[in-house]
Amino acid sequence: MSLNFAQRLDWIETSAIRELFKLLGKPGIISFAGGFPDARLFDVEGIRVAGEAALQSDPGGALQYGATEGYNPLREQISQWMAARGADQVAPEQLIVTTGSQQALDLIGKTMISPGDTVIVEAPTFLATIQCFKLYGANIITLPVDKDGADPEILASLIAQHKPKFVYLIPTFGNPSGATLSLARRRRMLELAVQTQTLLVEDDPYGDLYFDAPPPPSLMALSAQVAGSRDWLVHCGSLSKILSPGLRVGWLIAPAALLGKAVMCKQFSDAATSTYAQATAAAYLASGGLNAALERIRPVYAERAKAMVNALRRELGSAVDFVEPGGGLFVWARLTASGADANLLAKRAIEQGVAFVPGAPFYATNPDPATFRLSFATADVATIEAGVAKLAKAL
Amino acid sequence: MSLNFAQRLDWIETSAIRELFKLLGKPGIISFAGGFPDARLFDVEGIRVAGEAALQSDPGGALQYGATEGYNPLREQISQWMAARGADQVAPEQLIVTTGSQQALDLIGKTMISPGDTVIVEAPTFLATIQCFKLYGANIITLPVDKDGADPEILASLIAQHKPKFVYLIPTFGNPSGATLSLARRRRMLELAVQTQTLLVEDDPYGDLYFDAPPPPSLMALSAQVAGSRDWLVHCGSLSKILSPGLRVGWLIAPAALLGKAVMCKQFSDAATSTYAQATAAAYLASGGLNAALERIRPVYAERAKAMVNALRRELGSAVDFVEPGGGLFVWARLTASGADANLLAKRAIEQGVAFVPGAPFYATNPDPATFRLSFATADVATIEAGVAKLAKAL
Repeated sequence: MSLNFAQRLDWIETSAIRELFKLLGKPGIISFAGGFPDARLFDVEGIRVAGEAALQSDPGGALQYGATEGYNPLREQISQWMAARGADQVAPEQLIVTTGSQQALDLIGKTMISPGDTVIVEAPTFLATIQCFKLYGANIITLPVDKDGADPEILASLIAQHKPKFVYLIPTFGNPSGATLSLARRRRMLELAVQTQTLLVEDDPYGDLYFDAPPPPSLMALSAQVAGSRDWLVHCGSLSKILSPGLRVGWLIAPAALLGKAVMCKQFSDAATSTYAQATAAAYLASGGLNAALERIRPVYAERAKAMVNALRRELGSAVDFVEPGGGLFVWARLTASGADANLLAKRAIEQGVAFVPGAPFYATNPDPATFRLSFATADVATIEAGVAKLAKAL
Repeated sequence: MSLNFAQRLDWIETSAIRELFKLLGKPGIISFAGGFPDARLFDVEGIRVAGEAALQSDPGGALQYGATEGYNPLREQISQWMAARGADQVAPEQLIVTTGSQQALDLIGKTMISPGDTVIVEAPTFLATIQCFKLYGANIITLPVDKDGADPEILASLIAQHKPKFVYLIPTFGNPSGATLSLARRRRMLELAVQTQTLLVEDDPYGDLYFDAPPPPSLMALSAQVAGSRDWLVHCGSLSKILSPGLRVGWLIAPAALLGKAVMCKQFSDAATSTYAQATAAAYLASGGLNAALERIRPVYAERAKAMVNALRRELGSAVDFVEPGGGLFVWARLTASGADANLLAKRAIEQGVAFVPGAPFYATNPDPATFRLSFATADVATIEAGVAKLAKAL
């Protein structure tokens, strides 16, 4: 037998990703390859209590079909969570709950992209975003990222040239770049969206995982200061990196017309996000436990990031170039030797007992083969130091 | 501002559905309009205990990102659940967990349908399936249903004429038809799939909700008896109607090549189904509680179905025609008067204080305006009798 699959499957490239996943799970290897938060930092007891409270206070709501838009008590909590982060004008009805922020990306693709439409993303960017948009037929144009994020003047010329359906940015502690868009650039990005009537999609899963100081306000928070920009702004948020990915609770804030279309598409994608998980998340957020959890988590990731940065400097010296991240889960590095190939290094590193992810799949076009991503999130300091020493050996 | 949405949104028709949803929530009205199971029958305590057990025994597994294919202990439980229903050859790796069976349908659409491809569905069928497939550009051809389900000989000629990408059936206690495909027809359907090399999709959310006697084996169970048919068979299952829709746990069984593509698409749709919900479902199934829950639920729905059927006969007599359902949640009825319009009746019924769903949106083509769907699932016997009396008044 042979099945004749949909044409859209020919538009994506997954062999690189499959190769990556093979690196993740090998036993006995120190892994800097994952994109996961550390499960040992999850507030298991707090989530257990929240789940119990949800089933006790609203068993019907937690176990029955729910509105496609999301469980209302959770939408209210997310509205308050956004307000506490400076985005105090997002009413519960201006956001929908999604099955992780991955589904928010999928709904943006489903509602916005016709085959052949142009979309601009950062280079590098989250690889599942690239493939998600390609499945809807996007023609992807890339916008380079430096240590202050993407340059709005370059974006302006790309917009003028390509008239994209939208621009997708991870402005804060970008995955994989680790870069954070400066405040001045944020303002300019919002002005640019209004001037060129171009939709901006802000993906912000990492903003709460800062180390020493909070990052600049999100584009969503800042939009109150740039007249008209809310009409051109979409924001994706998530509990995955700050509470638990297993809940699969994310959210999408968008202009009303887009949000309505996204709800319609979500109805036929999964009907609703698990109300069991949503009611648990709502009870957890209502308990106020998440701020305390973040106070506990931030210094742990900060210490690990510092350990990795110091070890990289000590063990690899001028052989790699990187920007010290101010938050998030990743160090994005580049081999400085001319013609260096991070793929080759990855293979040698595995032999030495350490895994990381080569950078090429994070580029929608023109990959830089010298780049690679290191996650410091799930290993303790001693393991990070041992892993970087192995990396130095491999190099 | 105005956004330029994706072309695929023009392919679906949602005004009828929006109209329907307006009927569902009116306070003070007796509703036969929903498609929900009765939340009062949920095993809240059993689910609470299962959730607790899951977080205690495998907190990492229940709260971390999980494999896109699903949480392995749940895949094993589903494999055993299928085996207990006669499908004893579905290994855990031959199925994936989906975010409700709605996502299984979405993944089938995403992997199989290119714009313009033909898909055959029953008339009537689940309306979210029609819209889901249309969003991927399906050209939908309909196959009429009688009291024994769809006629394989009609299907044979439709296949010959249209060469569909696949055929979608709800063979057991169909939504909305209530009809059940006879054993003889099931065999013939499987033979036809092999002979014509046509993919059959079996959607089976209601099979365990039988009243007096179990229905014939599912196509999946029967496929062991029809050589080669497993290669052409896809099966969608769900815990939504038998345990809780709020968990959003469904599953997809498919030939390996299709399953692999579905996993790839799911990765970019929502990364994974909530592991929190999956681990809870796995613990619940492992406890063996679901059979006991079904023993408790079946007689309740059976009694309500009987009450509705008796009331319809008593109150409406020859004004309506219907087949008494042997399970599921629905009575599918037809006004016998020539030129009768169930839409008109629905409006008059609302005035009388009872809601139901007109049948037209359940037809992908050529709606029969005299049809309508009554759910007996969520009202008790006295309310059902009062509701049908109001319906008679409206008529």
